[in-house]
Amino acid sequence: MSGIDATQIVLASRPDGRPTTDNFRLETTSLPAISPGQLLLRTDYLSLDPYMRGRMSGAKSYAEPTPVGGLMEGSGVATVLESKHPDFREGDVVLARTGWRTHAVSDAAGLRKLDDTLAPVTTALGVLGMPGFTAYSGMKMIGKPKQGDTVVVAAASGPVGSLVGQIAKRAGARSVGIAGGKEKCAFAKSMFGFDEVVDHKSADFAQQLAEVCPKGIDVYFENVGGAVWQAVLPLLNTYARVPVCGLISQYNSFPAGDSQALLAQTMHTVLARSLTLRGYINSEFAGELYPSFLGEIGGAVASGEIRYREDFIDGLENAPVGLIGLLEGNNFGKLIVRVNVR
Amino acid sequence: MSGIDATQIVLASRPDGRPTTDNFRLETTSLPAISPGQLLLRTDYLSLDPYMRGRMSGAKSYAEPTPVGGLMEGSGVATVLESKHPDFREGDVVLARTGWRTHAVSDAAGLRKLDDTLAPVTTALGVLGMPGFTAYSGMKMIGKPKQGDTVVVAAASGPVGSLVGQIAKRAGARSVGIAGGKEKCAFAKSMFGFDEVVDHKSADFAQQLAEVCPKGIDVYFENVGGAVWQAVLPLLNTYARVPVCGLISQYNSFPAGDSQALLAQTMHTVLARSLTLRGYINSEFAGELYPSFLGEIGGAVASGEIRYREDFIDGLENAPVGLIGLLEGNNFGKLIVRVNVR
Repeated sequence: MSGIDATQIVLASRPDGRPTTDNFRLETTSLPAISPGQLLLRTDYLSLDPYMRGRMSGAKSYAEPTPVGGLMEGSGVATVLESKHPDFREGDVVLARTGWRTHAVSDAAGLRKLDDTLAPVTTALGVLGMPGFTAYSGMKMIGKPKQGDTVVVAAASGPVGSLVGQIAKRAGARSVGIAGGKEKCAFAKSMFGFDEVVDHKSADFAQQLAEVCPKGIDVYFENVGGAVWQAVLPLLNTYARVPVCGLISQYNSFPAGDSQALLAQTMHTVLARSLTLRGYINSEFAGELYPSFLGEIGGAVASGEIRYREDFIDGLENAPVGLIGLLEGNNFGKLIVRVNVR
Repeated sequence: MSGIDATQIVLASRPDGRPTTDNFRLETTSLPAISPGQLLLRTDYLSLDPYMRGRMSGAKSYAEPTPVGGLMEGSGVATVLESKHPDFREGDVVLARTGWRTHAVSDAAGLRKLDDTLAPVTTALGVLGMPGFTAYSGMKMIGKPKQGDTVVVAAASGPVGSLVGQIAKRAGARSVGIAGGKEKCAFAKSMFGFDEVVDHKSADFAQQLAEVCPKGIDVYFENVGGAVWQAVLPLLNTYARVPVCGLISQYNSFPAGDSQALLAQTMHTVLARSLTLRGYINSEFAGELYPSFLGEIGGAVASGEIRYREDFIDGLENAPVGLIGLLEGNNFGKLIVRVNVR
């Protein structure tokens, strides 16, 4: 097979605050014919994740920013269309860093073959992939929930929060979720077994949270920041653990100057309650924990003991709108773009 | 011996911001004759420490606030004047929670006999007491300096900071101190062997700090907060550890509303650099570490390998001015009031 035309989405410009569709550009590019050791991939599913907002910014974080004009980064589930690599054959389904494109040429670095006999391949983008491992490793290495603890997590219906809540329950802890809107709260409670779910859009959210945490909070899994953190802070118990895996509320913009003394209050509480705040990227723990994650959570997903929710968008061209909505909290579960499947 | 008159200092009113001498009141009180199991103590030396500001406030922190009209809390070195307790005899010198008073009746709970053959008894209030153990336990349990690390600590000439710097050096790390004023910086460098000491009163303090930390910061021992934290934050390396043992810059008052987005920046850095922030009170680690602290640091003090500095004030009546000055950073070393010794 000679080269193939691929559609891709690049970063047209850096967003100032909330991204708009103008920050993205759809392009057609011609892929070269593959060389020995390479594969031609067809992207079936593309994962949309909050970290993508960080790559769109110019500031260096734990990863380099995407250059303007560069391909939007991302992971996908892909089918091997053609292989000149000894370990893969046509028809294999793999997890790959495809980026936001319909087809990609790969040298097989970092590819993982997927098996759909235990769970659908899309779970490799969610509950059995990076988001799931983020929840699992943060809880195992930092949160360390114990019998009787109260564990609180926001974005409770999403791929990270929903697994945090279920891991808390498996450890014998009470799980308290936070989500936006009544419908999402009810869904998170019934679907993922949270003991309580509080709506952060309620006017008396902080009071409601305090009421459902009468014994305080022992583990707060931080993935949003902002107003939720302000409500959680006074409820944290001595020696509480705070894995910090995300701060989606401040990805589009830092809060304005009305955050009077907020840092001083946070630091005071860190000191007065002997708190542990620990930022992390899931990859830090992959070497140590990934096999046990796939064993434990993979088994529990296969048996139905652990539940998950996936939301689908059709067509690569709709990925920008999907990501913008994700940052606003519009989706319920793991957000996935169907690229070459319908 | 029948009862004795004691002079004491009580909390006259709660300070609003920086304490003034009006917040304290000197009183004379008559102590009862001691009963079986009790001791009469004469306070020789009283320790002044930043935590005392916290007790003067109404807000509950890790300890209950001192009631208005109540005795100012504190530890002292005391001599046993009279004993009806089998474990102590007249003339014994002890470490005791005397409070701010010239004499005290004790039931011996928490008393520790002091031996001045290895080091002066006043060291039990500083390098071989609570401040020293705060430095030791925070570094052993949280900071964990390694060969080649850069360790930064503020209040570098004080009892905690000076030992943090020396423990860093013993671990093979570079030690960078922060202190207020040229004289104090020069003193900290020559006395405690800091590789560099930066003056936080310099107009270009943050830039100077960056220049002396060309490889970033691996351990920041937080005892001040505020502007120093702002200067440290961008220099913290991935996986940096931040033991939080004090925040003296915000004890008198939280900063005003110009702290725009500071909390968001801190949380962003916690996430982006996988930082560990851990608040602690030294007592958390006492059971596990106090014997090794006394062995290791006690031995090194006796041999002269570890150095310390004590500043003295004469007379209990001058303790309020001493504490007020301590909170302003006026003292160089461990601040001690000579109560019944001259």
